[in-house]
Amino acid sequence: MPELRQNLATKEWVIIATDRAQRPEAFAYSARALTHQRAPQLPQCPFCPGNEMETPEDVLAWPAHGPWQVRVFPNSYPALSRYGERDHVLEGIHRKLNGVGYHEVIVESPRHNMTPALQPAEDIVLTLKAFQTRGREMMDDSRIEQSFYFKNHGPSAGASIEHTHAQLLALPVVPYDVRRRIEELRRTIDDDGLCPYCSMLKMEVEEGARLIDANEHFVAFIPYAAFSPFHTWVVPRRHGPTFLDQSIQELRSLGEIMRSIFARIYVGLKDPDYNYIIRSAPIRDSTSAYLHWYVSVVPRVTKAAGFELGSGMYINPALPEESARFLRS
Amino acid sequence: MPELRQNLATKEWVIIATDRAQRPEAFAYSARALTHQRAPQLPQCPFCPGNEMETPEDVLAWPAHGPWQVRVFPNSYPALSRYGERDHVLEGIHRKLNGVGYHEVIVESPRHNMTPALQPAEDIVLTLKAFQTRGREMMDDSRIEQSFYFKNHGPSAGASIEHTHAQLLALPVVPYDVRRRIEELRRTIDDDGLCPYCSMLKMEVEEGARLIDANEHFVAFIPYAAFSPFHTWVVPRRHGPTFLDQSIQELRSLGEIMRSIFARIYVGLKDPDYNYIIRSAPIRDSTSAYLHWYVSVVPRVTKAAGFELGSGMYINPALPEESARFLRS
Repeated sequence: MPELRQNLATKEWVIIATDRAQRPEAFAYSARALTHQRAPQLPQCPFCPGNEMETPEDVLAWPAHGPWQVRVFPNSYPALSRYGERDHVLEGIHRKLNGVGYHEVIVESPRHNMTPALQPAEDIVLTLKAFQTRGREMMDDSRIEQSFYFKNHGPSAGASIEHTHAQLLALPVVPYDVRRRIEELRRTIDDDGLCPYCSMLKMEVEEGARLIDANEHFVAFIPYAAFSPFHTWVVPRRHGPTFLDQSIQELRSLGEIMRSIFARIYVGLKDPDYNYIIRSAPIRDSTSAYLHWYVSVVPRVTKAAGFELGSGMYINPALPEESARFLRS
Repeated sequence: MPELRQNLATKEWVIIATDRAQRPEAFAYSARALTHQRAPQLPQCPFCPGNEMETPEDVLAWPAHGPWQVRVFPNSYPALSRYGERDHVLEGIHRKLNGVGYHEVIVESPRHNMTPALQPAEDIVLTLKAFQTRGREMMDDSRIEQSFYFKNHGPSAGASIEHTHAQLLALPVVPYDVRRRIEELRRTIDDDGLCPYCSMLKMEVEEGARLIDANEHFVAFIPYAAFSPFHTWVVPRRHGPTFLDQSIQELRSLGEIMRSIFARIYVGLKDPDYNYIIRSAPIRDSTSAYLHWYVSVVPRVTKAAGFELGSGMYINPALPEESARFLRS
């Protein structure tokens, strides 16, 4: 019997299609070279060392001296412009806004055949610190409402350049989906007096069936009502709205657990395309007592079809408990 | 300068990334056989005539006598089960529901090398009538809250079988996204006294820049804040909540305009993968004065990446006005 499950925090239902469920290993990628099998340097790659002139100038490069390990620069084809005012315009009956904001690229390693799954945790921490440094700076820009920190790995996840990189997008609005999630969360906490993210975290640790990994500051699990196979949440044990105030100890914990998740996905599913995104509070909500930030990791092993596009509801052809067991082992 | 545009009805913002905008023809599919170049029959295809035994038994086949033109039967790997009760279960802190509902397949033509873009309008009307007949029957099933009528064309749109077919999915819940859209719509109509779909339709006809086609009962246009290139809405001129009460004259009009949209997409973009979905009211809202049903057509020419997954906000690398001009000509 298939079942519908509801996510406690988002209130969204998902269909767990047990009748069409596949074994976890059936989702593995096949017939494709893994990242570590590539050449370590590619002369024509704009993100490889020596080709820095092909990208816009760095806004950040670490370490300060010697060859860089991490670089941040504006996207050459930005979705938003750094210049201009945040003007609200009424155009006929329609509303528009100048597309001001930031769109930056974080090259996470000088090596072309590298990916977070293969990096030591401290290198992932360097990327997280770059996100934090840039994100904190943008908090002072009054045009910006919310920043997103994310990575697209592989073509079906939206990556157009092969060399490992993450991105930062800072928006002049709070997206509708974020706003209604916040409203829903306030209602839930007002009704129950409990943060649903804290409740889920506690329950997932106690129950263990969907747990993948845990350390001092973070817990990684596949949510009870996961949208897609292996969709993983990394949730901080400390209730709080924003990634930007995490201490260096917390970032180290986060780097370690992310490394563990990426490595399990890389080995178990043969380096599939995936996205991760850090869901941190909108800037004006960054001291809210309601919000609980987290990281979402989404291996792209299934495709959204007409039903998903039209209803906003997903069909997951894998049992979260089985997917988690597979990634644990 | 990029711009952010807000959809009047859904309140969602989209980034129109003018700096990375591509010419409409750049989105055309390449290096792939078009549907009409396939064999007209395939011995191993479970949806071709002669292989009816390979699918579950028909719940509907038209015409009543002679060879079928349209067949409907339960999906062999259904996402939901026809049998069982709609039981709400509390499992620890989590909510679940038995996965009861309907998941049916509509084979739209006996010909293997057929697709709605190549069908005469009356054949599309036959599919629409099959949707209506099945949808009306499910209204009497008290376990069902909402039905979705949709098509996945091509592998990246989620089609696993090549032979042209549509689907019907009847759910025991109203998806969260649908519920909050209805709430938003009620608020807008209470505030403005006007249906935003009616306003958009009127404005699109007057302005014409994003119009693709129009006839007696329907208007087809690319919304001002379209999520993706060539994303088209087909909106009925008559304000009303449900597709299920459309007269045969209205269905004929709908078949004609859908045929026109599909043919333009087929020729202009070289038979791309696409989805369409009929967004009709939840059953208990099917007499609501607030709702305005419509059809959404989404060619799959771009990919959702980490930002879209995480924020629910889209980056459209094409100007809706240019995309519409391209499809008009």
